[in-house]
Amino acid sequence: MNNSMIVFILGQIIRLEGLLMIIPCLTSLIYQEHEIFAFLIVIISCLVIGTLMTLRKPANQTIYLKEGCVATAFSWILLSIFGCMPFVISGEIPSFTNALFETISGFTTTGASILSDVESMSHGMMLWRCFTHWIGGMGVLVFLLAIIPMNSASGSNMNLMKAESPGPSVGKLVPRLKHTARILYVIYFGMTVLEVIFLMFGHMSLFDALCTAFGTAGTGGFGIKNDSFGSFSPYIQWVVTVFMILFGVNFNFYYFVLFRNIRKALSMEEVRTYFLIILTSVAILFVSLMNTMSNMWDALRHAAFQVASIITTTGYASADFDQWSQTCKTVLVILMFVGACAGSTGGGMKVSRLVIMFKTVVKELSSYFHPKNIKKINMDGKPVEHEVVRAVNVYFITLMGIFTLSVFLVSLEGRDLVTNFTAVASCLNNIGPGLSEVGPTRNFGGLTGFTKYVLMFDMLAGRLELFPLLLIFNPGVYRDMIMGAWRGIKRRRQERRAN
Amino acid sequence: MNNSMIVFILGQIIRLEGLLMIIPCLTSLIYQEHEIFAFLIVIISCLVIGTLMTLRKPANQTIYLKEGCVATAFSWILLSIFGCMPFVISGEIPSFTNALFETISGFTTTGASILSDVESMSHGMMLWRCFTHWIGGMGVLVFLLAIIPMNSASGSNMNLMKAESPGPSVGKLVPRLKHTARILYVIYFGMTVLEVIFLMFGHMSLFDALCTAFGTAGTGGFGIKNDSFGSFSPYIQWVVTVFMILFGVNFNFYYFVLFRNIRKALSMEEVRTYFLIILTSVAILFVSLMNTMSNMWDALRHAAFQVASIITTTGYASADFDQWSQTCKTVLVILMFVGACAGSTGGGMKVSRLVIMFKTVVKELSSYFHPKNIKKINMDGKPVEHEVVRAVNVYFITLMGIFTLSVFLVSLEGRDLVTNFTAVASCLNNIGPGLSEVGPTRNFGGLTGFTKYVLMFDMLAGRLELFPLLLIFNPGVYRDMIMGAWRGIKRRRQERRAN
Repeated sequence: MNNSMIVFILGQIIRLEGLLMIIPCLTSLIYQEHEIFAFLIVIISCLVIGTLMTLRKPANQTIYLKEGCVATAFSWILLSIFGCMPFVISGEIPSFTNALFETISGFTTTGASILSDVESMSHGMMLWRCFTHWIGGMGVLVFLLAIIPMNSASGSNMNLMKAESPGPSVGKLVPRLKHTARILYVIYFGMTVLEVIFLMFGHMSLFDALCTAFGTAGTGGFGIKNDSFGSFSPYIQWVVTVFMILFGVNFNFYYFVLFRNIRKALSMEEVRTYFLIILTSVAILFVSLMNTMSNMWDALRHAAFQVASIITTTGYASADFDQWSQTCKTVLVILMFVGACAGSTGGGMKVSRLVIMFKTVVKELSSYFHPKNIKKINMDGKPVEHEVVRAVNVYFITLMGIFTLSVFLVSLEGRDLVTNFTAVASCLNNIGPGLSEVGPTRNFGGLTGFTKYVLMFDMLAGRLELFPLLLIFNPGVYRDMIMGAWRGIKRRRQERRAN
Repeated sequence: MNNSMIVFILGQIIRLEGLLMIIPCLTSLIYQEHEIFAFLIVIISCLVIGTLMTLRKPANQTIYLKEGCVATAFSWILLSIFGCMPFVISGEIPSFTNALFETISGFTTTGASILSDVESMSHGMMLWRCFTHWIGGMGVLVFLLAIIPMNSASGSNMNLMKAESPGPSVGKLVPRLKHTARILYVIYFGMTVLEVIFLMFGHMSLFDALCTAFGTAGTGGFGIKNDSFGSFSPYIQWVVTVFMILFGVNFNFYYFVLFRNIRKALSMEEVRTYFLIILTSVAILFVSLMNTMSNMWDALRHAAFQVASIITTTGYASADFDQWSQTCKTVLVILMFVGACAGSTGGGMKVSRLVIMFKTVVKELSSYFHPKNIKKINMDGKPVEHEVVRAVNVYFITLMGIFTLSVFLVSLEGRDLVTNFTAVASCLNNIGPGLSEVGPTRNFGGLTGFTKYVLMFDMLAGRLELFPLLLIFNPGVYRDMIMGAWRGIKRRRQERRAN
């Protein structure tokens, strides 16, 4: 294990977090809030620790997949620990467990909150809380790749990106990975600005628009009001609906739209399936809601908002959907697992995985007719590599395994099955609200510490697509690390002797 | 498609059912019940139709996997349609939908019932109801293989057995498949007799003991009392617990015990894991029940009974477990999916599949360390074929797909999530009772016809392990059948011309 490279990456991540925290710190300054001191303490700590860790640039910069995964997992954990400190120090969320839950929920773009009264937060803290969604949405390591020069062995950066990017396979858009990362961030930034402008047209203040756009862009879901989006105007709700759907689209789609040809973009199977699922689900919810709502347009708006919010794993709520019909609730629970497109900021299983799984089953059925004729599955006109299909299967099995174990652990607290089931589904798929006691009008604050840590694990596992996080529970990782450290000491001793 | 061979098999199945129905008919005779006429009408119909269909023995007896699956799926559907007729004709279950539900639930060894008052049934009907479990438990086609001489091309019988047998792979115990089938039936029969004797020691009448043993042996779950097993003595409950567990063991285990060596039997990984899961689950339930029950032995008995009943997918209830703690209920819901061993009469996913899936995930994790070192998964000391692993993955994906779709369809009725979720889980895994409105003290009678047909599909899909049943929804099957018929007509015309 290349320890020094892992330490180097972690140091850069911590320093980066310190720099990013300047933005909420400035917000506190503008609003003249005394929370500014909490930010300053954490910023200085991050910069000092980060700089110390990156003082010595490692000679060997090679990163294999295991190092990429371990670095990613530890990055996200450290990021969350440092990120929750402003809440703890300022006293806005005094409990460390709660603050960590809120921050992990932020970075993983889950949006599950332990706060019952969001509106009482200071501006600086509110912005930081929503900003974590935006940072976590695209991924911090991708950001690192975009801005920091790493002329390491080829494939190293790919291994970092693989570990953090959502979806069954990572494609390079352009030959150089750094350019890909930059293009992604430019699209991300541009769309966020666009949403802010649209929201401000609806008479939202810049601050509210920024917070809302951060939550939408990262498909996070932290609201700025206690009733999430219930009290906003229909215009605002429609704008958010559209942008949630847009941020759930595979970013390759936008790349194709911008740089190549529209036809290739429109022929992307995943994106087409994604829109098909959205349309079907909205139709079902619309019909079901028509019975209870007087106004057809209200029914359509709530149906579209909630479907968009859940399938993109954002988790905003325009109404208390826990009160809706069983059919609506069932569709929403199913959508929790579907998730957005791969290569978007959304969570869940991803539409492309579902497409691959569906095609696998169809292929299996046709193999009964033509046992000798073993064809590969096609997607976007190209055959899907056997290795990708296998990885999708294993991912799904692992997801269900973690899901089952988590539901059992959470059930020890004694709450009802629907609460346990949807709390885990919601956290593992990075959505936010569940049903029943974790429904859109409730929050996660009342759960025990043990349950919260289980859910924190689920949120991180969901965001990092399971394996990078599972890996750090493998004792082999630490054996490898100690071996690496030992080899380093021996080498240095030999060098000293040689001199 | 070899149409004439499919018709021939179906004819034999129907005739076989007519013969098997003589047993409940005799019961009606002994108890001098007028339901005997209902049985007689159906028996005569079965024998006549069955004989007509088997008059002409097909020249080409080759059965490929697709024919095996199609024959199996249609066999089970016809079996259920003819099997429900006595209930309809006698008027004990006047509605055809209800009678079909009850019969499919019987043959698939589910045990989900639409009856609220079982005790009012006549003896003949009661015996037939429980006897369907016994018939369905080991499988009718396996029975056919055991008794009927089919000297067809090698592999044909295997394809029939493959389609009906539970588990990821079918192993021949002895070189000749017919012998395997016979040995299985002898073990099955012997163990059933043994249970009857043990139950009669507990002062059960022969009739009650037979019905109970049929339900246990087939891991079915139709009770003979309205409260299932609540009112029986602890001795009876323990006997049933032990036999439920025994019938959930892979029958190869008994074969090894009887004919070869104990060591090989004891080293079977699936059986060891099965007992490990049972012990762990009983321990969890025991601890949880200790809080509510005054007597330690009562807690242990109920814990053991319910774990055995659910993991073997029998579905008997010694208490209303819907009232137990959330932890207990969660464990039971998880066990619903686990299921018994492959090669047993139980349903569910089967322990061996879980073991393979678990090992797949572990292998995936270790592949991050040694990407080049691709090892096969081992089970019982032998490598598991890549094809089997793939089939397990596809099975799991398909199961979850059918599960999700079914929960959605059932949710249209508007019942609560827990009812919908556990009703589908219970039927798809062939268990019987669920929770909430389909809990152990309730029944499936109140559901709408649509929901019942969805659940019937699930029960058959679960028993036939998905693909044989899915196959008959593929239009390709019927295209193949018509093609086959057309080719047959052409051939006969040519032969006539040649003469």
